[in-house]
Amino acid sequence: MDPTMFRMPFADVLARLAAILETLGFTPARANTCAHLFAETTCDGVYTHGVNRFPRFVATIRNGSVDPAAEPVCLSAFGALERWDGRRGPGNLNAQAAMDRAIALARQHGIACIALCNTNHWMRGGTYGWQAADAGLIALCWTNTMPNIPPWGAVTPAIGNNPLILAVPRPNGHLVLDMAMSQFSYGALETHRRRSQPLPVPGGFDSAGQLTRDAAAIEASQRALPIGYWKGSGLSILLDSIAAVLALGNATHQFSTDPLLETALSQTFIAIHPAAVGDPGRHALIADEIVASVHAATPDSPDTTIRYPGEQTLRLRVENTALGLPIDESTWSTIMEMPA
Amino acid sequence: MDPTMFRMPFADVLARLAAILETLGFTPARANTCAHLFAETTCDGVYTHGVNRFPRFVATIRNGSVDPAAEPVCLSAFGALERWDGRRGPGNLNAQAAMDRAIALARQHGIACIALCNTNHWMRGGTYGWQAADAGLIALCWTNTMPNIPPWGAVTPAIGNNPLILAVPRPNGHLVLDMAMSQFSYGALETHRRRSQPLPVPGGFDSAGQLTRDAAAIEASQRALPIGYWKGSGLSILLDSIAAVLALGNATHQFSTDPLLETALSQTFIAIHPAAVGDPGRHALIADEIVASVHAATPDSPDTTIRYPGEQTLRLRVENTALGLPIDESTWSTIMEMPA
Repeated sequence: MDPTMFRMPFADVLARLAAILETLGFTPARANTCAHLFAETTCDGVYTHGVNRFPRFVATIRNGSVDPAAEPVCLSAFGALERWDGRRGPGNLNAQAAMDRAIALARQHGIACIALCNTNHWMRGGTYGWQAADAGLIALCWTNTMPNIPPWGAVTPAIGNNPLILAVPRPNGHLVLDMAMSQFSYGALETHRRRSQPLPVPGGFDSAGQLTRDAAAIEASQRALPIGYWKGSGLSILLDSIAAVLALGNATHQFSTDPLLETALSQTFIAIHPAAVGDPGRHALIADEIVASVHAATPDSPDTTIRYPGEQTLRLRVENTALGLPIDESTWSTIMEMPA
Repeated sequence: MDPTMFRMPFADVLARLAAILETLGFTPARANTCAHLFAETTCDGVYTHGVNRFPRFVATIRNGSVDPAAEPVCLSAFGALERWDGRRGPGNLNAQAAMDRAIALARQHGIACIALCNTNHWMRGGTYGWQAADAGLIALCWTNTMPNIPPWGAVTPAIGNNPLILAVPRPNGHLVLDMAMSQFSYGALETHRRRSQPLPVPGGFDSAGQLTRDAAAIEASQRALPIGYWKGSGLSILLDSIAAVLALGNATHQFSTDPLLETALSQTFIAIHPAAVGDPGRHALIADEIVASVHAATPDSPDTTIRYPGEQTLRLRVENTALGLPIDESTWSTIMEMPA
């Protein structure tokens, strides 16, 4: 662990974050749920989107981007498809409510979709995949974001990194993929630049238009790569289109590129109830065999561990639950200075 | 156009392919539909999966991988979710029928999903995206495939290139993404090797474990890259898992790596009916604005055209409908030698 980090029990982190949220206009129950989502994300090892993101989240409440009291409402319903307005409420609470609703509807109809407009950054997208898988459902969900990647062939940002989540329940450990459309986030580029480390693979173009592993050169050009070059560029456009069209909401081109002002996003939540048309015992066996086949591939070196998506999360969850959440010292000072 | 190609009217291509299929045990109606799907794919500019793929398709009928008379049957239904058995029928007819059923169910329920087991190669996946978009529906569908890419960190193939299709209807031209999980197909690698052209971006590892643009080196190592490195590897695993689990069907690790023996695949078809919860006029406007925002990005050179997924298809469809389908001379000789 980084020497600027220390460990703190989950319950203590939760209590502090919840107390702060209550002073900001959350009801006690919603403050607790929202704080829990932040602590859980850190516990699962997604440090960029857990407690470390909390000060920025508070800033978006203070500047009015996020309305702490707003709860989502259903605008239109047709069978297993519903369109909801997030009313610019807290993004993680809205997303959790949307996936809850998708799960309930999928149990009735086999599959369901909630299209959510006017919501906010959902923090860790994987959260809603785990949520569905814990309920025994398959899930696909995604969000649009501000324009932060150039489409293929362009030098100016016009597409979002639009995280996409896919989840499959499995008694021996859910498969959960949480994947943004950019090869590296700007946060990851910053980390590599500070450590003077080259990226493990090309992450963008330099200002001369050459592919590069130099994070600083990509920060300067603002030409981060979408995954798979033209392919991720296309996937980003389609995810944005489905999210905005279905929700009658905003699209990437309409968002501020200031993270504190990026608001009123569009999201899509799809849940599928496999047990409605099949036997959970067979589902578990099929998923176990897929995991085993991936693990059986020959690694590229004796030190390489080949993992399925979600495997690392489970490992870190166990470790951080036992030892305490790894907390960044300077972030925690900021949090301790907030009224609670 | 390549000098080894010539152009032929759509109707003539269709008639010849249909006549061959009738001799192979297709009813006249199914022969016509199946032949139409091949001709249409060439017309849309996806030459690898249209008429050029027909001889291989015929070989899989002759060797028993594909049963020309088999039609899909519903095994289990729960509201908007159905599980079907493709009975190893022709993959493109099965996929078209599955998407048709998903569209009909989505019109009743808002969203629907067909899980299809025991089917065959669907040829061009984009076909089923266009099919849904032509009906005014949003679609997501994917197939699993034989293991042809190493998972991230491995040197031996264990994941499929599992094409993923997303489609959004738009009166001014549908958005349709048709994307395999490999950065380049083995067909594309072969083309570059034959022309002694470097790949435009790294496409895999050489036998020494270095990223390379040398197609021959990747063919030798069999270490083609998934899109986005670890990200596409994860996406491939999740798509395979959802397809196999939902359909109670086979997964990637169970398929032969001989293209002629790759059979009994699993596929997922999701259709969403946006008009059920929104106004098609607003949908069109939102999609048009997204397309305009992508087109408005600054190109990396004066010669670069920035395109949305599906744009090139429409352009080629118009051109090939007017001028005739581009046909490979040697493929056509093979086709003319088949009994009809």
